[in-house]
Amino acid sequence: MEFSPLFWPVELKGNTIHILDESRLPEKISYIKARNYQQAALAIKQMKTRAVGQVTLAFYAFLLTARLHKEKKALLAALRKAAQAINATRPTLPFKFISDMVLGWASAGMDLEKNINGFLAGLKNKRVRQAEQMVELLGSEDSILTHCNVSGLMPLIAELARRQKKKLRFFVTETRPYLQGWRLTAWELQLFGHSVTLITDSMAAQVMSGGKITKVIVGADQLAQNGDIANKIGTYQIAILARHFEIPFYVLCPPTSKAETGADIKIEVRSDEEMLHYRGLPLAPKGIKGYYPAFDITPHNLITRHIYMEL
Amino acid sequence: MEFSPLFWPVELKGNTIHILDESRLPEKISYIKARNYQQAALAIKQMKTRAVGQVTLAFYAFLLTARLHKEKKALLAALRKAAQAINATRPTLPFKFISDMVLGWASAGMDLEKNINGFLAGLKNKRVRQAEQMVELLGSEDSILTHCNVSGLMPLIAELARRQKKKLRFFVTETRPYLQGWRLTAWELQLFGHSVTLITDSMAAQVMSGGKITKVIVGADQLAQNGDIANKIGTYQIAILARHFEIPFYVLCPPTSKAETGADIKIEVRSDEEMLHYRGLPLAPKGIKGYYPAFDITPHNLITRHIYMEL
Repeated sequence: MEFSPLFWPVELKGNTIHILDESRLPEKISYIKARNYQQAALAIKQMKTRAVGQVTLAFYAFLLTARLHKEKKALLAALRKAAQAINATRPTLPFKFISDMVLGWASAGMDLEKNINGFLAGLKNKRVRQAEQMVELLGSEDSILTHCNVSGLMPLIAELARRQKKKLRFFVTETRPYLQGWRLTAWELQLFGHSVTLITDSMAAQVMSGGKITKVIVGADQLAQNGDIANKIGTYQIAILARHFEIPFYVLCPPTSKAETGADIKIEVRSDEEMLHYRGLPLAPKGIKGYYPAFDITPHNLITRHIYMEL
Repeated sequence: MEFSPLFWPVELKGNTIHILDESRLPEKISYIKARNYQQAALAIKQMKTRAVGQVTLAFYAFLLTARLHKEKKALLAALRKAAQAINATRPTLPFKFISDMVLGWASAGMDLEKNINGFLAGLKNKRVRQAEQMVELLGSEDSILTHCNVSGLMPLIAELARRQKKKLRFFVTETRPYLQGWRLTAWELQLFGHSVTLITDSMAAQVMSGGKITKVIVGADQLAQNGDIANKIGTYQIAILARHFEIPFYVLCPPTSKAETGADIKIEVRSDEEMLHYRGLPLAPKGIKGYYPAFDITPHNLITRHIYMEL
């Protein structure tokens, strides 16, 4: 099975983390390097990688930090400092969950090298199983609407479905303001020869009403304990539309976080500059302010089925 | 009362139609000229003007044609030829309705100069009254979500409300792929000093769920006899979201067309090239096709109230 470059976009080689620079896709497949937690935190802040890439990157940042300290007290102090920097990068992904896990292992005197690599290997396998579970829920012909990007899971689902002779067709939203749907998901599906149609975010209801969509599949950046999810801005309204048109809405979930409900998840509000320009060109008149929440919360009652990944 | 340049964007001076080139807004207020129906039809096709501008332009195109022919048989033949060209420009606006009206007047031997100018003067007045009606429905403080552009009606509503000490705040969607919300509506509201916040099309549910929106107001490109409307792509899903969040959804309507229901209105599907680039820069990977319906149909049962303009 060949994977999308987005399926596992961050690798550790020696003492260097190689990060697929998603901001340059689809024009260029290039990797940036991080050699310490500060560089890792910067790459997260600048959205060079997202979702599973950010999770992997955070773990590797702790591992690089840990390698510098043999003595437990110094190790814990260094990890806490790294945790502070990483937790402060972006509020919506549960980085604290990851930091607490690593700090817990270190406090208990466990081998971080073994634990972190073991956790990530498990994550990788469980993502494959998640794709397998999703394919079981698909019919012999399905037309899938997806939003943003689920880090290589969509082409994996498409490939597994193809092997089972299930015919899939994908409608991919643009996912403004960062265009991850077109730049990442459409690109990786096209790489493997799957059928893709691009639509803007404003067209979801129109394509649903015409009977063009039989299922919606999205990912999640955070899963609360009650089943609410935080995902890329625009997910919530697609869930409401899917409910209106009685189209099943599936979520490929990360492990459950400590948030009890969606209300406990902090929504990152980013600079409006990022949404008011495209490659330096203005999209709007000067001097008018924009509001850019990077995520929204989809309540659990709009989700037909969670595809869980319990670790 | 000062009007937005978009309120009446097409004027006839002598034998030349002056058309506000909306494709160059907000950077530049410039006018293109049309001296016959062929040039008028081209400006419509190229979306140099829209909505009320297209209606006015079509009427003036007939008027210029009529001025060339004194003899009734020749006049009717020339008008029919012009009607053919104008009806073929774009399918969703009811150009045939306009053509049939003009041909009817000509067949009855009526004075076209007087009838067309009279009709357009009435249209202008009735648009002002429509804004007045809308303001009556607003509270002392309202936060309005709007989509696309209603040709200068929104700043007029805002101005009339300001005179009544009603405080309004506007959230304006980007309106991909053509960005009329940001380029036109936000711009004209800003011109008159009103409070505007820009959001992308993917953020409507998020801002509604946070209680930020108290009313939705949109226009319509065509009104069917049963109250269904055709309007810019993305309107339909905003109507569904407004219903979900129990937010009143108002439509500033054109005169009723001959379509019995929305199903009788043909939706224009435009070239995907127009949505896959921004000022020549690609927005998506090469070689993937897009689907670009320029309008959608909002069924009457999602509309809280139609603000009619009966002529």
